[in-house]
Amino acid sequence: MTRQELIDNIRRKRSFLCVGLDTDLRKVPQCVLKEEDPIFAFNRAIIEATAPYCVAYKPNLAFYEAEGVKGLAAFEKTVKYLKEHHPDQMIIADAKRGDIGNTSEMYARTFFDTYGVDALTVAPYMGEDSVTPFISPLPAPPLGECSKTRWVILLALTSNKGSLDFQLTEDKEGERLFEKVIRKSQQWGTPDNMMYVVGATRGELFTDIRRVAPENFLLVPGVGAQGGSLEEVCKYGMTKDCGLIVNSSRAIIYASNGEDFAQRAAEEAKKVQQQMEQLLAKA
Amino acid sequence: MTRQELIDNIRRKRSFLCVGLDTDLRKVPQCVLKEEDPIFAFNRAIIEATAPYCVAYKPNLAFYEAEGVKGLAAFEKTVKYLKEHHPDQMIIADAKRGDIGNTSEMYARTFFDTYGVDALTVAPYMGEDSVTPFISPLPAPPLGECSKTRWVILLALTSNKGSLDFQLTEDKEGERLFEKVIRKSQQWGTPDNMMYVVGATRGELFTDIRRVAPENFLLVPGVGAQGGSLEEVCKYGMTKDCGLIVNSSRAIIYASNGEDFAQRAAEEAKKVQQQMEQLLAKA
Repeated sequence: MTRQELIDNIRRKRSFLCVGLDTDLRKVPQCVLKEEDPIFAFNRAIIEATAPYCVAYKPNLAFYEAEGVKGLAAFEKTVKYLKEHHPDQMIIADAKRGDIGNTSEMYARTFFDTYGVDALTVAPYMGEDSVTPFISPLPAPPLGECSKTRWVILLALTSNKGSLDFQLTEDKEGERLFEKVIRKSQQWGTPDNMMYVVGATRGELFTDIRRVAPENFLLVPGVGAQGGSLEEVCKYGMTKDCGLIVNSSRAIIYASNGEDFAQRAAEEAKKVQQQMEQLLAKA
Repeated sequence: MTRQELIDNIRRKRSFLCVGLDTDLRKVPQCVLKEEDPIFAFNRAIIEATAPYCVAYKPNLAFYEAEGVKGLAAFEKTVKYLKEHHPDQMIIADAKRGDIGNTSEMYARTFFDTYGVDALTVAPYMGEDSVTPFISPLPAPPLGECSKTRWVILLALTSNKGSLDFQLTEDKEGERLFEKVIRKSQQWGTPDNMMYVVGATRGELFTDIRRVAPENFLLVPGVGAQGGSLEEVCKYGMTKDCGLIVNSSRAIIYASNGEDFAQRAAEEAKKVQQQMEQLLAKA
């Protein structure tokens, strides 16, 4: 999915919501556990219920890997289902990978070529050669196939308490680590293939981030269960192209633990979408 | 595996070599590709050939994930094989994970409980609550089973060029990021459950690292294909308990591309072990 397609989808659906598919078999409703592939069955029901209200889905790999081979098969099926039935949804694999060059290339192959997702979250600690293999199309697409955009979503300022440990450290010139990550990585990718993870729990810092990355889309976790404010995020972080994808996982997918889980998820997603519609109109 | 068991193994085998199982189907010899499970067949042959000369194996998850469900099954079989036939080998899953608390817990479950490895590499960018779930035994072991040591191997100073981008950044007090990662994380774990990744390509910096982490074991990649010097690493990094696990992947497992691959891997591993024996005797 290109940047322009993403922007068009946001305008058309009046939403910049991403639904996080953190599917945990210890949390899904009883009725789902009877299904042959309960992870996929849960995801499909959630997708069918929430697709009108969002522009992206973000499965977190940790939850699929925890179920071993079966979990990964369910992840694969979910991606395939989205591509077939909801090609207008961006698929973000939240895997937070990053390793030396040849290893990052292997991960890139896995997620973009084998599974076929649109975007991958990447940790920046190991620097440029750990990040760029996710951007460049490697290997070149076969003759006749057009190259598809591979998005890297680099961790910048995360929403958890531990983000205070290193991400806010100032260097001698007063630049904080998360700013340095964004500034340097502006040389590695462009607003057409690079986004940043910025937690909603730090509303006031979006101004500083927009100074370094005026155009990049930001993937914003931390609204909902983690307590960030959507209004604050928009006030300080929204651009003329929206420039935001706001994620909500638990607050939507676990809105109910009963047989009405999909309907309740739809209601929660719709609530967020309506708020987003207003905020988009205001901007 | 406890710290004392690791030290005993190093003394007994006069080796602190870790063999990296970066098994890539595009690089293994032709003769292996005929096997039903070529990844596992290659690993088993390499393990049988090199086990006398090393104390640890480090499969890098990127290579297994790239083959999808089959690759992960091969990883699982490799871990099981090592536990059954070579229980004195430490098994290090090189996966460089790290996410918000509840997600890191899922990863910890996967690697320590489902697969049963001894150690996992973790990226520090997201701070304390992204790292500690890998250390604490969660959930508590069932009655009658004793708690097994879970090792975290935290990325500190990596061996790649990109390590210069952020890891060496000095803060206002002149502390570099990798030093801060080590210093802070000394509060999260102990030398009994925490190691650090320190690339061999930065020999002279081992002195600085030993100032902050005098006792922790260091996992050292970058000897071999990446050009680091074993002598330098030992000169500046070795402790009275050795304190080093030096990894070599490509230089050993791809020593030959012919039918003699296992024998040539054994020869390469033995060469490194003999060097290590001398360096241990000298210290």
